[in-house]
Amino acid sequence: MFQKITDNKWLNLFKTDKPNGGDYFFASRKKNPDIEKNEDAVVIAAYKRTEDGLRLIVTKEFRPALNGYEWGFPAGLVDGDEGLYGAAKRELKEETGLDAVKLLYVSPQIYSSAGLTDESVAMVFVEATGELSTEGNEADEDIIVYEMTPDEVSHLVCSGKKIGAKAWAIMDRFAQNGKLWMEK
Amino acid sequence: MFQKITDNKWLNLFKTDKPNGGDYFFASRKKNPDIEKNEDAVVIAAYKRTEDGLRLIVTKEFRPALNGYEWGFPAGLVDGDEGLYGAAKRELKEETGLDAVKLLYVSPQIYSSAGLTDESVAMVFVEATGELSTEGNEADEDIIVYEMTPDEVSHLVCSGKKIGAKAWAIMDRFAQNGKLWMEK
Repeated sequence: MFQKITDNKWLNLFKTDKPNGGDYFFASRKKNPDIEKNEDAVVIAAYKRTEDGLRLIVTKEFRPALNGYEWGFPAGLVDGDEGLYGAAKRELKEETGLDAVKLLYVSPQIYSSAGLTDESVAMVFVEATGELSTEGNEADEDIIVYEMTPDEVSHLVCSGKKIGAKAWAIMDRFAQNGKLWMEK
Repeated sequence: MFQKITDNKWLNLFKTDKPNGGDYFFASRKKNPDIEKNEDAVVIAAYKRTEDGLRLIVTKEFRPALNGYEWGFPAGLVDGDEGLYGAAKRELKEETGLDAVKLLYVSPQIYSSAGLTDESVAMVFVEATGELSTEGNEADEDIIVYEMTPDEVSHLVCSGKKIGAKAWAIMDRFAQNGKLWMEK
């Protein structure tokens, strides 16, 4: 039912039918979107505790599609049977050097932009400890990592810089009250 | 710098270079992502006041890329010089029948999934009044609209149904405390 119309390794365009006729195009990382289940990917909202409050872990990553940097959260694909928290722990360590020590909350699978792609992820909220390091980054990753106060996050979200949609709501809430997502 | 490798009306695949060499592919709705500014699109988080608390306006829309329904918020493109609030008012009226009567909050431009597309939107938070109606829907839109209590939203986010990423955080917060996004 889905017709593959490009042949790239990582991302392809597919064609399907609109309910009332006509072609509909979307992008997918899957080889066969008809039968593959949702990709298991995680976006990690991580906090560190300090003596004067929480710090939000924020990444700045070069994005070829934007020809510039995007501010957001660590993220990556689930490998094998490590599970969502396992993937969050591993990716957080690789991208930031931090250790996830407590699992706080996991979102359902949420869809990035269903008008143009079938991509979905789970958001994993964790408490982290340790010191920032990007030594675990892969060679083709250009990621800088920060631990930010609520004031710094507030400045970031108002700065006009490019911010990832999944990170924005969490950042905005943290900027307003310096709290973890699920605290009332 | 960006090379267009498909030739569709609404969505195309483009190729660019990774910083350290190699090809990088992404999807875009733009004709020329090198020079066009960010598309002006809005996602509308709307609430109605009732005697027993707030109701969140939630849409259920058929998404060909998912071969199924996505639960989320009304959304659309900004026309001409109507501005973000103007677009939010018009799209909310068309998709839900409701009137936006108060602008509460506007997010910065946020990027849907910068690893695979340059798409960005602004989230517009509004208070709305009126009665639900989908008579203003365009012929090729398959949208059902609901006004939900916090309990109903809580049930939805835990149901395993497909939920839009930009709507999820707002839904989750509303499910927890029945409040508008920006209230502490």
